Amino acid sequence: MNLGKVVGTVVATRKEPSLEGLRFMLVRHLDENGKETGGQVVAVDAVGSGPGELVLVATGSSARQTLATDKKPCDAVIMAIVDSWDIGGKERYRKSDD
Amino acid sequence: MNLGKVVGTVVATRKEPSLEGLRFMLVRHLDENGKETGGQVVAVDAVGSGPGELVLVATGSSARQTLATDKKPCDAVIMAIVDSWDIGGKERYRKSDD
Amino acid sequence: MNLGKVVGTVVATRKEPSLEGLRFMLVRHLDENGKETGGQVVAVDAVGSGPGELVLVATGSSARQTLATDKKPCDAVIMAIVDSWDIGGKERYRKSDD
Amino acid sequence: MNLGKVVGTVVATRKEPSLEGLRFMLVRHLDENGKETGGQVVAVDAVGSGPGELVLVATGSSARQTLATDKKPCDAVIMAIVDSWDIGGKERYRKSDD
Amino acid sequence: MNLGKVVGTVVATRKEPSLEGLRFMLVRHLDENGKETGGQVVAVDAVGSGPGELVLVATGSSARQTLATDKKPCDAVIMAIVDSWDIGGKERYRKSDD
Repeated sequence: MNLGKVVGTVVATRKEPSLEGLRFMLVRHLDENGKETGGQVVAVDAVGSGPGELVLVATGSSARQTLATDKKPCDAVIMAIVDSWDIGGKERYRKSDD
Repeated sequence: MNLGKVVGTVVATRKEPSLEGLRFMLVRHLDENGKETGGQVVAVDAVGSGPGELVLVATGSSARQTLATDKKPCDAVIMAIVDSWDIGGKERYRKSDD
Repeated sequence: MNLGKVVGTVVATRKEPSLEGLRFMLVRHLDENGKETGGQVVAVDAVGSGPGELVLVATGSSARQTLATDKKPCDAVIMAIVDSWDIGGKERYRKSDD
Repeated sequence: MNLGKVVGTVVATRKEPSLEGLRFMLVRHLDENGKETGGQVVAVDAVGSGPGELVLVATGSSARQTLATDKKPCDAVIMAIVDSWDIGGKERYRKSDD
Repeated sequence: MNLGKVVGTVVATRKEPSLEGLRFMLVRHLDENGKETGGQVVAVDAVGSGPGELVLVATGSSARQTLATDKKPCDAVIMAIVDSWDIGGKERYRKSDD
């Protein structure tokens, strides 16, 4: 999985029917310091994430292993919202309570 | 999924029989600003997209999860036509009505 | 799928038994102008392609969705021979009749 | 598989239900000399690895072929803890007994 | 598939049980001239390859389509030992008889 930050949403009315009702989120890739790497991906939201949240994104066939995406043409899914992470025992990120 | 722009079509008469009747589109990769990144992919069209349209492309095994591509040797599919997207609440792209 | 050019063949006598009889082609990656990008892949030929021909290569699990490659340890397959492609309505490549 | 070093953990309370109980590890990619390459991945731990250990990480659908990750939206798994490796008959790395 | 050269072995005692008995090889990526590209991968050996040999490596789910790797968390497999290859009808590599 990759660390990412939800920054926006993509609207697509005309699509493969099985995708109806899914939310497509624009997610920027982050490195282990929470810094944007310059890349981004459009991922289906499976966990109720919103703009500004840091998330984990799973890609490939694993992106279809959620209730929301099963058997659908989706190759990237937000399958977790990140609360915090640490490196070498030191906290690098913690979600604020706002 | 990746954002892309349909720029052309590829014709291939001699192909795996299961691919008969599919349309192969040349799609340039776009970043979150709608700017071309320099890369491209040949994707099967599953939603009736045409030249000039911005689309979402799913790759890998997920590219076979459409009615058009099921069980076929296709690793990239156009599964949605993009109407618009926003970043940080501001619209970055909206399809014109032309 | 990616555009490629068949430039050679790879011989491997000792291999997973299921691969017996398949042809391994050396394929250079091409961009949308038909220019070599510097990369290459070894792909199984599923359509009778030969040296010099421009082809489409499917990778990953989709490379196993041909009669030739079904259930085999093959992650890249030539599934179509390219006749031509256009960009913005202008022909960029057309196979010669030689 | 890629060589990696476990450097931290990621906490995510809100996630796809099937992921409950799994440990998400932050793993830095290593080259054949054990040097960090600058990349990293978040991988599910399937073998009881801990911070500081060198591991093998499998990605894609293969990341779901462990007891811990079967049928789950996980695209990277730690499936082995590395004891040692050699290149050209010379040992390049051996885990210390600490 | 990618061309590679077997340069070493990786030992991992603690691993997913299904991987017991498999050999993990360190394989350097080669380009079409047989030159190392700087990258490497750890691949399971399915064909009895050894250090110094040039091989083909299949990745992703295709890496599980051998007798040795079926249903195992393995995303890269050596599925053939290369005897020779040619480009434009000229031999670029031939295995020596040593």
